[in-house]
Amino acid sequence: MVAKVNEYFKLIENNYLFVDIAKKVDEYQKENPSAEIIKMGIGDVTRPLPKSVIKAFKAAVDEMADYESFRGYGPEQGYAFLIDTIIENDYNPLGISLDTSEVFVSDGAKCDTGNFQELFSKDNVIAVTDPVYPVYIDSNVIAGRSGKLSDNGEYENIVYIPTTKENGFIPSLPDVPVDIIYLCYPNNPTGTTLTKDQLKVWVDYARENKAIILYDVAYEAFITENNIPHSIYEIDGAKEVAVEFKSFSKVAGFTGTRCAYTVVPKELKVEDEDGNDVYLNPLWNRRQSTKFNGVSYPVQRAAQAIYTLEGKKEILENIEYYMKNASIIRENLEKIGLTVYGGVNSPYIWVKTPKDMDSWSFFDILLDKAHVVGTPGVGFGPSGEGYLRLTAFNTLKNTKKAMDRISKLDI
Amino acid sequence: MVAKVNEYFKLIENNYLFVDIAKKVDEYQKENPSAEIIKMGIGDVTRPLPKSVIKAFKAAVDEMADYESFRGYGPEQGYAFLIDTIIENDYNPLGISLDTSEVFVSDGAKCDTGNFQELFSKDNVIAVTDPVYPVYIDSNVIAGRSGKLSDNGEYENIVYIPTTKENGFIPSLPDVPVDIIYLCYPNNPTGTTLTKDQLKVWVDYARENKAIILYDVAYEAFITENNIPHSIYEIDGAKEVAVEFKSFSKVAGFTGTRCAYTVVPKELKVEDEDGNDVYLNPLWNRRQSTKFNGVSYPVQRAAQAIYTLEGKKEILENIEYYMKNASIIRENLEKIGLTVYGGVNSPYIWVKTPKDMDSWSFFDILLDKAHVVGTPGVGFGPSGEGYLRLTAFNTLKNTKKAMDRISKLDI
Repeated sequence: MVAKVNEYFKLIENNYLFVDIAKKVDEYQKENPSAEIIKMGIGDVTRPLPKSVIKAFKAAVDEMADYESFRGYGPEQGYAFLIDTIIENDYNPLGISLDTSEVFVSDGAKCDTGNFQELFSKDNVIAVTDPVYPVYIDSNVIAGRSGKLSDNGEYENIVYIPTTKENGFIPSLPDVPVDIIYLCYPNNPTGTTLTKDQLKVWVDYARENKAIILYDVAYEAFITENNIPHSIYEIDGAKEVAVEFKSFSKVAGFTGTRCAYTVVPKELKVEDEDGNDVYLNPLWNRRQSTKFNGVSYPVQRAAQAIYTLEGKKEILENIEYYMKNASIIRENLEKIGLTVYGGVNSPYIWVKTPKDMDSWSFFDILLDKAHVVGTPGVGFGPSGEGYLRLTAFNTLKNTKKAMDRISKLDI
Repeated sequence: MVAKVNEYFKLIENNYLFVDIAKKVDEYQKENPSAEIIKMGIGDVTRPLPKSVIKAFKAAVDEMADYESFRGYGPEQGYAFLIDTIIENDYNPLGISLDTSEVFVSDGAKCDTGNFQELFSKDNVIAVTDPVYPVYIDSNVIAGRSGKLSDNGEYENIVYIPTTKENGFIPSLPDVPVDIIYLCYPNNPTGTTLTKDQLKVWVDYARENKAIILYDVAYEAFITENNIPHSIYEIDGAKEVAVEFKSFSKVAGFTGTRCAYTVVPKELKVEDEDGNDVYLNPLWNRRQSTKFNGVSYPVQRAAQAIYTLEGKKEILENIEYYMKNASIIRENLEKIGLTVYGGVNSPYIWVKTPKDMDSWSFFDILLDKAHVVGTPGVGFGPSGEGYLRLTAFNTLKNTKKAMDRISKLDI
């Protein structure tokens, strides 16, 4: 016998997209030390944690200093104080009721969206909208649910549903049978949304076809327009077919603090080989109890503070700040004749490349001529070719500076 | 098509051992509200975080409050400031040199020991010493590397290597071919150790048989005797065959704060289907980049403070405190005629049940008659039957009280 590698690792590209870009930017900076590079690529925030969050965070650290208030292992699922606060604030106002046992606190939506596929059969067919957050695909490739990466940029056995300007960024239902559907709205990377009616089409499809929707609402807080659902559970019957993932990263600046949650309703079920119902809530609970040990206690207290009156006010200021950046990006790019999407209910602006150039060429021009880093759309999948993603998460000053530089380019 | 469950989930028992015990204790407490229960079951600490850790933790939270010092996404692998501190303090003094890229900071050794199997082929044969930390087995069962749970308490296709009083808790080399070997020393749950020569036997075996050792040193800090290795890399050639997992949970009271690390040396390799070498370091890096987003920045600063002069002193005090508890437990149980193991280089005392009663019966007696919670040895595997684990992590006062109560029992 010989220890052998999981062969499926060979199928994924060597580097994670954002690691790749970071390396490219580092190299450019080394070659051009005086270039003042403005990063609008990776979706990382720049505004500090709200004061109310800092206060609660430190108070909880202080609790860890005393015998009486010290906390060791917490529940793998998260503390009830945080879960109940989430339900009361993120769900009840939408008319959605959830039990404490249906919400699982974690250290990130990346982990949860990456790990959740473990609950499903290796034979299940995965569908993604294209372009897409790479984690959905990569985690399934590693788990053996794909074939090879084809020349067209798609993995065999994974169903790609294009969302482009040609279909107004409204994905069609899959034309082949699929079992697990990843949806992210407001969308990463395109910044576009689905209305309630448009999302209902997917929930109905999943119900009729016994498919499961993995719904990522990492950018929910940036929704400004009416009739855009803040949770998939606003759609009738969604609890039977959908998991919902939400992160505090973007809404509250938690990218470096790490907290998120995943909703697995009790009604949600799949089938076993014999066609019997299997409920996913106890299965995810078992998975988390076995391979996860809960989120740092002070971090959970920090997350809870987001929902205080003061916290909500501070967070709203941050979101308004970023959304002002988004509109500045939109306006400036449109002024120089570029076509842009997103940026209205989302911190992402999805830019059509000028003169139909490819994504990486536009990336290179922006880096080289404007010292601005975007994310090449093709990095999110073949239907992202010819686009580039910019984020509104930089400072107002840098955002304006970046737009000034780009406006002066001859593109 | 229909969304289907991962059938392997059916093979594991419904509840994680410690969740099971917690429920049983809760029920007992409800039925006996006046019972003052002392928990010596789960390996959770009771002493607060050291002052130096609290100070660094809060200072880092303060950094998150300012534009200039705020940190968003960190490296998935952990910050170099922590990794280099780990290498300088945990490895260099042992004569072991490591590169920054060989250490991966994470939120827990449970996650890392649970996730690492993803890198290996589903066909690899897993070996564990028995009794064993349940995560090693459960994570492989879910991944499909076992058959069913047999009546003898062993999963089919997993190799169990007994460590009992009959072999002096020194596991024999496997008598069938195996690929992946989990070892934990100082051992959880038995509290026993291997000398350098005894560990060398395993490293040599792995080298000769192209097997991989997953070595868990969560309890390294409790070693008091000479000639007990603090790292598997003290053994010549171990870098080619061993991964090492270490947690800050027990050494620094981080069970509720969450930080750990995993060492994946660059020399470490397995083979692919065609017999080509595949190095595990870049593979683990890719896995973590894809499914993990790094540890909370303030937590990493808190962990770094463990290695300051002040931090080391405070931690040593905690360890001495717990090890005093361990010797109190040993002495008291031996005084009433029980046979005990561990507790010398480990916070765990492995108690042979009196009159050869089974583990759960002894658990019930201790809970019912002494209101003391242990962990039934059989919960760690079939060779744990007839034993019970007690931990030294409670307070000195409670430990003494528990021993007083047990001493009065007629067992």
